[in-house]
Amino acid sequence: MTADHRFETCARDMGYDFSGDIKIGGNYSPVVPDGKQLWVSGQIPRVGDEVLFVGVLGETLDLAQGKQAAAIGAMRALALLQRTLGSLESIAAVLRITVYVRSGACFTQQSEVADGASDVLCRVLGPRGVHTRTSVGVMQLPKGAAVELDMVATAKEGYA
Amino acid sequence: MTADHRFETCARDMGYDFSGDIKIGGNYSPVVPDGKQLWVSGQIPRVGDEVLFVGVLGETLDLAQGKQAAAIGAMRALALLQRTLGSLESIAAVLRITVYVRSGACFTQQSEVADGASDVLCRVLGPRGVHTRTSVGVMQLPKGAAVELDMVATAKEGYA
Amino acid sequence: MTADHRFETCARDMGYDFSGDIKIGGNYSPVVPDGKQLWVSGQIPRVGDEVLFVGVLGETLDLAQGKQAAAIGAMRALALLQRTLGSLESIAAVLRITVYVRSGACFTQQSEVADGASDVLCRVLGPRGVHTRTSVGVMQLPKGAAVELDMVATAKEGYA
Repeated sequence: MTADHRFETCARDMGYDFSGDIKIGGNYSPVVPDGKQLWVSGQIPRVGDEVLFVGVLGETLDLAQGKQAAAIGAMRALALLQRTLGSLESIAAVLRITVYVRSGACFTQQSEVADGASDVLCRVLGPRGVHTRTSVGVMQLPKGAAVELDMVATAKEGYA
Repeated sequence: MTADHRFETCARDMGYDFSGDIKIGGNYSPVVPDGKQLWVSGQIPRVGDEVLFVGVLGETLDLAQGKQAAAIGAMRALALLQRTLGSLESIAAVLRITVYVRSGACFTQQSEVADGASDVLCRVLGPRGVHTRTSVGVMQLPKGAAVELDMVATAKEGYA
Repeated sequence: MTADHRFETCARDMGYDFSGDIKIGGNYSPVVPDGKQLWVSGQIPRVGDEVLFVGVLGETLDLAQGKQAAAIGAMRALALLQRTLGSLESIAAVLRITVYVRSGACFTQQSEVADGASDVLCRVLGPRGVHTRTSVGVMQLPKGAAVELDMVATAKEGYA
């Protein structure tokens, strides 16, 4: 069972298809490598053309929805790395995810929202998915998204 | 036409002069290198002593002003790298910009604001200016600035 | 006088003990290395089980309290690096701290809050503590903490 298989299973369990185009706006790149490091642009919970979770945690969205939004951001980041590397088996480690949670003034469960992303990484990548994490509550996000997530990962020796 | 010439042309077109001191407060450094990586501190749209764009996107400032503020942040980061490396020709790649946009509760065009910075990078650095990007909407920024931008870039082999 | 001694003195002066467990929630890691780089997860001002500074800068907390909160975040990050490396003498450089300050709408002294962290780094690590920094004002933070801080540092040759 490879990480790519686990990614497919995870996508199916979530009920989303990440095999289509991953839309990126503006003149920047979804992934830029530096040696073995791979920097991934901020991902919102968009599948195809639609941002699936728009709203404010603690006001219009609840924790379970926030977790799902974070999980989609993590899946998008993995899908981008898979296209860059050919296979998720080529990922050596995830150095950092930063999880920005659009938060109402009283919502303090940013870490619990970010668990949705951390769970995806560990499920798909196993021990290689262990990562450092920062989660913060922000005022707004592009397109009104509930969560945005960026990532820095590393590829195994031999890649690049 | 070098990147340094394009930087000068870009500064002239914007109507600002980035050749003076770049003020940094506190006991930290504008740029810290790690091998070929160059980490650049968060830049607000300050030229000389003055923060040029103070305010809230979607409330007291509009998108065009936000883009200009982001462009100034990017130019400051480039000016700092130019001083560190001697020339912008020595930049190999821009790994990441994070663009923090001071946002009213209903302003969701953080990506469009960040385009102001991305455009500067591509105009000055050409294909080497392609980068990953994260843009988020925050509550406040130092000095009430409209935008703050930080960067991680790499230098070409041979530097350092 | 080693960095480890200076860390102890600094902890004593602050009146806190960082020698116990450093609690991390969720399935992520406090520190992930990549070669000589060490990525440290976001730290809130928690000592033992208690988050010491909960509140909003400019509303329920003042600048002096914010600086202390930032200082505790920096001390926690150093404590984690000390456990990872065996000694703070093995740190070569601090590439970045990002300081997220939970801010009221009118509070613009995020940089001054972050000085609390920068001062700790310079006091404990001396010239090796010079770093780049980004400080922003956010809506909320995990557990309602006043400040969150993450870090990327490097270890001296020979480690790892």
